[in-house]
Amino acid sequence: MSTENKINYQSRQNKYSKGNNRQTYKKSSSSAANGSKGRNFNGNTPNNFKRANGKRPYKKQNRVPNKPSVKIAFLGGLNEIGKNITLIECENDIVIVDCGMAFPDGDMLGVDLVIPDFSYIEQNFDKVKGIVLTHGHEDHIGGLPFLLSKMSIPIYGTPLTLGLVGNKLKEHSLLNQSQLNVVNAGDSIKLGCIDIKFIHVNHSIPDAVAFAIHTPAGTIMHTGDFKIDCTPISGDMIDLSSIAREGDNGVLALLAESTNAERSGYTPTERMVSDSLDGLFKSAENYRIIIATFASNVNRVQQIINCAAKYGRKVAFSGRSMVNYMDVAGRLGYLTIPENIIIDIDMLDKFMPEQVVLVTTGSQGEPMSALSRMAYSDHRKVMVGEGDFIIISANPIPGNEKTVGNVVDELLKKGCKVIYESMYDVHVSGHACQEELKIMHRLVKPKYFIPVHGEQKHLRKHAELAEFLGMSKKNIFIGDVGSAIEINENYIKELAPVPSGKVFVDGLGVGDVGSIVLRDRKHLGQDGLIIIVASLDVYDGHVISGPDVVSRGFVYVRESEGLLEEVRQLSLDILESCANHGIHEWGVIKNKIKEDVSKLIGQRTRRSPMILPILQEV
Amino acid sequence: MSTENKINYQSRQNKYSKGNNRQTYKKSSSSAANGSKGRNFNGNTPNNFKRANGKRPYKKQNRVPNKPSVKIAFLGGLNEIGKNITLIECENDIVIVDCGMAFPDGDMLGVDLVIPDFSYIEQNFDKVKGIVLTHGHEDHIGGLPFLLSKMSIPIYGTPLTLGLVGNKLKEHSLLNQSQLNVVNAGDSIKLGCIDIKFIHVNHSIPDAVAFAIHTPAGTIMHTGDFKIDCTPISGDMIDLSSIAREGDNGVLALLAESTNAERSGYTPTERMVSDSLDGLFKSAENYRIIIATFASNVNRVQQIINCAAKYGRKVAFSGRSMVNYMDVAGRLGYLTIPENIIIDIDMLDKFMPEQVVLVTTGSQGEPMSALSRMAYSDHRKVMVGEGDFIIISANPIPGNEKTVGNVVDELLKKGCKVIYESMYDVHVSGHACQEELKIMHRLVKPKYFIPVHGEQKHLRKHAELAEFLGMSKKNIFIGDVGSAIEINENYIKELAPVPSGKVFVDGLGVGDVGSIVLRDRKHLGQDGLIIIVASLDVYDGHVISGPDVVSRGFVYVRESEGLLEEVRQLSLDILESCANHGIHEWGVIKNKIKEDVSKLIGQRTRRSPMILPILQEV
Repeated sequence: MSTENKINYQSRQNKYSKGNNRQTYKKSSSSAANGSKGRNFNGNTPNNFKRANGKRPYKKQNRVPNKPSVKIAFLGGLNEIGKNITLIECENDIVIVDCGMAFPDGDMLGVDLVIPDFSYIEQNFDKVKGIVLTHGHEDHIGGLPFLLSKMSIPIYGTPLTLGLVGNKLKEHSLLNQSQLNVVNAGDSIKLGCIDIKFIHVNHSIPDAVAFAIHTPAGTIMHTGDFKIDCTPISGDMIDLSSIAREGDNGVLALLAESTNAERSGYTPTERMVSDSLDGLFKSAENYRIIIATFASNVNRVQQIINCAAKYGRKVAFSGRSMVNYMDVAGRLGYLTIPENIIIDIDMLDKFMPEQVVLVTTGSQGEPMSALSRMAYSDHRKVMVGEGDFIIISANPIPGNEKTVGNVVDELLKKGCKVIYESMYDVHVSGHACQEELKIMHRLVKPKYFIPVHGEQKHLRKHAELAEFLGMSKKNIFIGDVGSAIEINENYIKELAPVPSGKVFVDGLGVGDVGSIVLRDRKHLGQDGLIIIVASLDVYDGHVISGPDVVSRGFVYVRESEGLLEEVRQLSLDILESCANHGIHEWGVIKNKIKEDVSKLIGQRTRRSPMILPILQEV
Repeated sequence: MSTENKINYQSRQNKYSKGNNRQTYKKSSSSAANGSKGRNFNGNTPNNFKRANGKRPYKKQNRVPNKPSVKIAFLGGLNEIGKNITLIECENDIVIVDCGMAFPDGDMLGVDLVIPDFSYIEQNFDKVKGIVLTHGHEDHIGGLPFLLSKMSIPIYGTPLTLGLVGNKLKEHSLLNQSQLNVVNAGDSIKLGCIDIKFIHVNHSIPDAVAFAIHTPAGTIMHTGDFKIDCTPISGDMIDLSSIAREGDNGVLALLAESTNAERSGYTPTERMVSDSLDGLFKSAENYRIIIATFASNVNRVQQIINCAAKYGRKVAFSGRSMVNYMDVAGRLGYLTIPENIIIDIDMLDKFMPEQVVLVTTGSQGEPMSALSRMAYSDHRKVMVGEGDFIIISANPIPGNEKTVGNVVDELLKKGCKVIYESMYDVHVSGHACQEELKIMHRLVKPKYFIPVHGEQKHLRKHAELAEFLGMSKKNIFIGDVGSAIEINENYIKELAPVPSGKVFVDGLGVGDVGSIVLRDRKHLGQDGLIIIVASLDVYDGHVISGPDVVSRGFVYVRESEGLLEEVRQLSLDILESCANHGIHEWGVIKNKIKEDVSKLIGQRTRRSPMILPILQEV
């Protein structure tokens, strides 16, 4: 059964007449703005924000808000890159925007991925009307299988996004029970009292959208990830007209992404990469070309295919996610592929090197990726060497600079030509830089602004940008994971945080690895361990067998036999002394061993391995 | 006893007349260059380089070399950043240039630092005449204590370099037995048949030098780390005249640093930072200023002191290495400090925030550094918050981007103003960019070129730059740690590699942590471990006590009691089955437990913790 069969395309026809709903979304009158009512936000100290000494958060006046409030809760995506998920709640309806995952930090040892804590959604399940997805990147859809395995929620997204979601749910055997509803950019859906318009934007994956979320309290504009590309490779330019129309009709709050808020100017068009690629294809005419890029960057791959066609090369794909993405994008018509140009990677050897292009994963130097395997001679099908011209068509994501550099170095040592980082314009970002953000702000003209999708420095920069454009500091809210706010025409107010956090996925386990396990892993990883095992007489506590000392990850045992023998002797002395003094409580004995052995090892080696005494009764 | 007392300043007077030695260093005649004699280097495949089928490496001709050869061996600094150490050997004399350490990569768990393998020096100890130091950075002097604890070798360096070395040796209780000989830039020393001229260069630490190493085989020019700064903060501009003179007299081989070989243009002058700092001091007039920079960047600190003096602020230092460096630099006169401007960090609270500047370590986001501690509210003496204006006057070294970013985010969350990365010109590099490298090449006019101090990509770029300047590919050698080459007027030839490698220092242990220990640490860190302990009957092998199952770093035990009970039962079954079948060989039994438990855990969790069966006989 193919993935598409499970996707409900009916909603394509569900175009809601906007007239009725819209009439209520008048531009909020300026008399209601910036008043003394409601809590002010200075944008600098959200954590210090409290309800002032039990007073009502705003003075009761004769005029009561003539519209309800909307509540916005953030379960991820603030003070972090990834794990984007936002809840919009009005009256008794909740709409979830995106459901992403994050990659683990270096200190989350052994963790495969990080997902949001879904408790708040579980607690409010009866209100949840649906999940709307901005685009198909992992940091926006990667958490879905883990949420949907707990509860059933209808999902709404554009065709490519749902194609990717479908594949993902299939892998988790969740596809049959899921409701995937295709919505095209330009269309609207109604979830409870909330009407959501899908607005086309440019990004590094096709079919990305922003949302104009029309609630009874007013319109919330959520940009998703976006850039302004006037000459995109496929599809249209971002639908600035629709955004402008929303702005003209009045937007209560703007939630806009902040990834590139530190970068001045504009992000160049994706089309710019074409020229660079063309030049490189020319100069690589006697080489095999290998290009590493993000598997999800369908437009980039399209440009590579175009270049390959022009220069008479076949194209093969390497890396599981590359093959997956190309499969979905190809089937749904997001790739224009000339006939007979794609070959299987096994066919590479049937062609001369200068007749092929290999498109591969691994642009971030990920240890298990196809490109890394090639670099370290660990790829089953591709050997690289002097005849290879390798282009890394991506920039290192912060934190990956070193691994990418190592892969480049290994490839160079093998004699490959390598084009990397900013040597040529072989990559452009998918996110809006400052000038594009300014255009978004100017068009949307929101009353309140909440920067999203970014670390603290990105959120702050974005807030400063809004201030620079004239927004009052108190109308800007910088939140954190778990933050919840209430907004209406009269005020923006921080509510008590909602349950939230990082849930670690390790293998099949979801949430069974936490801070204690990670602390132990770190300790074991840094210093190794010493195990002391002894069998004690059940009656008098004297040692019957052992103590035996086993170490792992501590030192070369052969060079430290003397030290480990000292540990054995010390442990034996402690055990016998305890037995002689009638101390039979194992907790006490174990602690004594831990402390004294720790001290001995510390003096001799200045290291602190985990000390693990294990006693058995015989 | 102060450090200086141990330093021998006599050699300041040892100026060798250059006339006699120099006359032999005529510019090598072009007829001897680029001939068919000697092995050619294409610069691309050093590893493939072999003596061709037992043939002599160069055709015997009537003309024999009228000068001996010089051998250059690299024990570090090639294909890595750090651990710089090069041996120059001629006739029966060896001079060691620098003796650095490197910081561990992320996969060297628990390792504190990495030093070179000194075996080759030990094997040739009788030839070693001395160590000459280019400057006082850790990647050039950090390996000294570990070498000097094994053998005594006289050391030669400029005053500040030896001041720092002296402090370091004192910490290792090696100062009394060491011979430190101060040499000023411009002076020469003679070590065996090798005459070494110290030539002043600019770098991010004062008192840096390059070496013109005059051997009977010809002159080897080693740049050390350098940049060309026409307006340095203290001291003179790099002594280009001396370098030019060496070039005019003929240089056999140039060894030049490659750190910035990928960067076009020039590195700006250190003085440029002054203007930026001045502007920031002005705009921070109501704040306490905290500036993080490299402790060794004495000139940067000088500029901060100058600014502080101008704006009437006191200066305090934070961080052990910062205090150390300032102590040495101050005592030796490398800092000009207005009276009463320096205060102890404990005095900070006695002044208004706008009256002080705190200069601190931690510009790389190092977890235990002063700035990190401030960011994470873990500093014993300094609390930061909204009144603080924090300047990070350094760029992240590749690999540190993420940790620096995290520290910035934490500081921002606390409400601090933070100036970081390229926001303002608060940092300049200490290394030569491409245009400066070109000047060096053009002045030195070497016959052979060996790029040093860099990863593969830096070395390649530097080699390409030399080619661009007209040098033949076969006169360029790109080496690796352990590479050894023989050079004379007629050829450059790769020799068999010398013993070399990475020696890990962990606590007090030097070299007792190797690949097996690191592999175990990695395994433990990623997946944790499961220990299965049982006492067996010494006669029939049946289980007397246990098996007990203990896990660490695997899962929350409380949530996985069922699984661990399964592991216990499975182990018990295996043990009993082995006893019943008369299998008493522990290796066999343990392997069976490892395999079966591993399989069970893998199926249930898709994880692979270390499985450690421990058996005892009773």
